[in-house]
Amino acid sequence: MDIALDAMGGDHAPGPIVAGALKALESDPELRVTLVGDESAIRSLMGGSPPSRASVFHCTQVIGMDESPASGFRRKPDNSIARCWQLLAQGKVGGIVSAGNTGAMVAGGLFSRRFLKHIDRPAIATVMPTLKGPSIMLDVGANVNPKAEQLFQYGLMGEIYARLMFNKPKPTIGLMNVGSEEGKGNELVKQTQSLFNNSPLRANYLGNIEGRDIHQGVADVIVTDGFVGNVVLKVCEGLFDFMIKMVAQELNETLVSEKDLAKKAIHTLISRYDYSAFGGAPLLGIDGICIISHGSSGERAISNALALAAKLARAGINSQIVQELDQIPSLVGAGSSGA
Amino acid sequence: MDIALDAMGGDHAPGPIVAGALKALESDPELRVTLVGDESAIRSLMGGSPPSRASVFHCTQVIGMDESPASGFRRKPDNSIARCWQLLAQGKVGGIVSAGNTGAMVAGGLFSRRFLKHIDRPAIATVMPTLKGPSIMLDVGANVNPKAEQLFQYGLMGEIYARLMFNKPKPTIGLMNVGSEEGKGNELVKQTQSLFNNSPLRANYLGNIEGRDIHQGVADVIVTDGFVGNVVLKVCEGLFDFMIKMVAQELNETLVSEKDLAKKAIHTLISRYDYSAFGGAPLLGIDGICIISHGSSGERAISNALALAAKLARAGINSQIVQELDQIPSLVGAGSSGA
Repeated sequence: MDIALDAMGGDHAPGPIVAGALKALESDPELRVTLVGDESAIRSLMGGSPPSRASVFHCTQVIGMDESPASGFRRKPDNSIARCWQLLAQGKVGGIVSAGNTGAMVAGGLFSRRFLKHIDRPAIATVMPTLKGPSIMLDVGANVNPKAEQLFQYGLMGEIYARLMFNKPKPTIGLMNVGSEEGKGNELVKQTQSLFNNSPLRANYLGNIEGRDIHQGVADVIVTDGFVGNVVLKVCEGLFDFMIKMVAQELNETLVSEKDLAKKAIHTLISRYDYSAFGGAPLLGIDGICIISHGSSGERAISNALALAAKLARAGINSQIVQELDQIPSLVGAGSSGA
Repeated sequence: MDIALDAMGGDHAPGPIVAGALKALESDPELRVTLVGDESAIRSLMGGSPPSRASVFHCTQVIGMDESPASGFRRKPDNSIARCWQLLAQGKVGGIVSAGNTGAMVAGGLFSRRFLKHIDRPAIATVMPTLKGPSIMLDVGANVNPKAEQLFQYGLMGEIYARLMFNKPKPTIGLMNVGSEEGKGNELVKQTQSLFNNSPLRANYLGNIEGRDIHQGVADVIVTDGFVGNVVLKVCEGLFDFMIKMVAQELNETLVSEKDLAKKAIHTLISRYDYSAFGGAPLLGIDGICIISHGSSGERAISNALALAAKLARAGINSQIVQELDQIPSLVGAGSSGA
């Protein structure tokens, strides 16, 4: 299992990125990692005796975290994200991981056009913690203007993801909407409803779900467009931080002798549910594995992202996606014209 | 100040609704409330000596909380929400309050067409708690398919609301988007950006904000379409509940002698931030005051909603909205054709 890792991407790169690679290599003896970026910086971080399964692909440029992806790719042809995508396109690696500019990672995928058969556009999938364990929500920002066929494809990809990664034999799919009744919502969700209802996924399909259903764990897979999904994910990150601050402050003012125990409890919650602590979000629909990690990723998050990439590759997620879509001829036709 | 109150609307109506009316009448000596609903039920809840400023308008029907608004209005012409809107249209009251079916309240407004001059469509505005105090977000569900001119009108109405109700001399306005850079987002937000940038509100306008900015208090007014706003509001309600449960559980497992103090702290947080505890959300853009309260509203929430209605009426919010829109001739033209 060969993964290219963008060593230069992330708020604190390359330090914790290289450390995360070393950690992942240590725990997975069959993993090989190609660190992409400034060779001398990477080598000095790897120390005197780097593992033989780590190699370096040198490049000279980095797209900044807030840089426009389009101008980044134009002005910096030797950037680390483009080099990762090239290694994937050339078949030199089976997956890529970056904590760099999310827009640039998605743009790299769109430029390379390495989409799975029958897939019009890839989707970013993210794990949401719920009262019933993890759910997967997609798309959270790859495409802010999708068509109904694409939302259907998200549902299918998410269903396979949940089956393989959450070990749920028959994951349920919910369509994010403003009310649970049929007929609610905008044109996009109405069209998407009928695609699900007339497909082999109808047995998994719960229909509409509402915002408050997400954390209740009502659906294993939450399908939404990239605009709504991106806003929702960031609202959750922001509200999580807000509540942790308010809880900490209130406990500090109320408790007397057990303030330290309360702090410990809060840290446990943060490490369990912090949205930025998960390894990363897969960009599903790519022919290959692509993981987009949070910009703030540290050593643990990068190591988790590499482990997730390896796990997805070994589970054969992509061949299962293509195989299921092969069996839905009507949608394949509709989907192809909707690209 | 005369307000019609839907005595039959809400999960627990009419008990806490009538109690909330009595409470509000007690604290505001200039308030008059017309309770709309089943007269004998209301009178028996009001007790032997109801205040003279409470009157009852009898009607025989109620639209259920989950009933389709369209069929509710068609099948039940004597429903309490329709009667509230009629009292407003006839000028018998200056405002209406209901904790009943939200869709039916909005539909009642659309049927009555009592919109303010220059306003194409009303918007539901809701208060969001933030690290810097309250912000107002609109629309959270009145219109899932608005035009850019309407989003601009939301911004203007929200700016006046924040000025009058939060005592902020120059409220800032943020447009909900998937990134902060110009050029981000879908067509709707791109068009809306240029309307703000070419209007007298440009000095208040911050440009794009992201989901995580809401609870940071980055903007006093958060403008978004009714689909995104509704999903965001319900996600916040759900995540709030989820986190309170997780915090309570973790503290219960970690603390030893101060569990009761921690419970007290959590109850303080719930009463301060619970999204359903606020009095209600105004439907702005109506010629009159309209407050939509949460279905779970109890006595305190209803009393707060009545107080909010009275405060908005006394502040003259509607005449200020019309006056400001009068001064933007280009938008008035664009808006009218966008209805």
